[in-house]
Amino acid sequence: MDMAYLTTGYDVQLPAWIADELAQVPETIPDRDERMALVHRLADRNWREGAGGPFAALVAEVATGRIVSVGVNVVLASGISSAHAEVTALGTAQRNIGSWDLGGADQPEHELVVNWRPCVQCYGATMWSGVRSLVVAGSGPELEEISTFDEGPMVADWAEQFEARGIRVTQDVLRDEAIAVFRAYREAVDSGGLTVYNARAAE
Amino acid sequence: MDMAYLTTGYDVQLPAWIADELAQVPETIPDRDERMALVHRLADRNWREGAGGPFAALVAEVATGRIVSVGVNVVLASGISSAHAEVTALGTAQRNIGSWDLGGADQPEHELVVNWRPCVQCYGATMWSGVRSLVVAGSGPELEEISTFDEGPMVADWAEQFEARGIRVTQDVLRDEAIAVFRAYREAVDSGGLTVYNARAAE
Repeated sequence: MDMAYLTTGYDVQLPAWIADELAQVPETIPDRDERMALVHRLADRNWREGAGGPFAALVAEVATGRIVSVGVNVVLASGISSAHAEVTALGTAQRNIGSWDLGGADQPEHELVVNWRPCVQCYGATMWSGVRSLVVAGSGPELEEISTFDEGPMVADWAEQFEARGIRVTQDVLRDEAIAVFRAYREAVDSGGLTVYNARAAE
Repeated sequence: MDMAYLTTGYDVQLPAWIADELAQVPETIPDRDERMALVHRLADRNWREGAGGPFAALVAEVATGRIVSVGVNVVLASGISSAHAEVTALGTAQRNIGSWDLGGADQPEHELVVNWRPCVQCYGATMWSGVRSLVVAGSGPELEEISTFDEGPMVADWAEQFEARGIRVTQDVLRDEAIAVFRAYREAVDSGGLTVYNARAAE
């Protein structure tokens, strides 16, 4: 076969509305709660815009709060099933710094901020990215219960496994606000008209 | 911040040598062992070319063996840590068919062929991709022992979890040949000069 027969790559792009959403946001957000609040705003707008599920993430420098990237779930918009918020934020951050390793010797410490515990794919993606810190709004069953997304089979000691690999885990940052986003999404699903993109797994 | 400050996406491309490697390969490979043999050839060449680890994958139509995509680990070549062989093969397959869902109602059944059990990231990536079948050369501790790659924390019933989501798992297809690739890679690492890209996790 020649390569005209096969696709030779894929790209994942952030939605155009991200530019509007970030226009009034400073490049450095020193307060952790404010970084999470930005993630929640992006997650809520993301499903309303139809790009994918109600999920967003960002990569920031731990010491300063400088934003290195943002990501949203663009599975529907990109046509790529791996394009969850974490994978998108990590990929754009790595493109930004010019390395696959956000924890390289020449790098400041980076954190990934997400609006819930990553699914099993993004659990691994976070582990291999080089970030030194993971900040999540929550980690309980509420995400699956409310949103109906399947998060996949996770080991019970998932947080300890991060810590064993030098990745600190911080939980319960603006937790109620995360759940409010999932509830709004669910209400829209129940009223019809939204594509729930991994519904097959829940059949 | 404006978007000139942030990177707005990332792309993952297959290495140019893939075209040479596939030039004599037919578009349809009806025999499963021959599909796996192609994966082993790509995995072996991949680390020698310096694109990433000794890992390759392909997506094929189950009924016919028609090849829909190939992927190799291009973490080093792409600068994107999620660009493992499975994620690359699934992403290019999805770009090829024009949908995030390889299991969509209008699609033939697709299988993912990989030269070992996926790491925890690619475990999830496979689960969300829509493939109906996973074919691996092996699944034991040999990969980590020989290659020194950290595969991450996996649930004990990983295969049953696939089956519960409608994804059949076939193991031990050209297993010895997979191990031979890992051993050749390890010998090259031990003799110096190769970048082992997720070595931090093993420190």
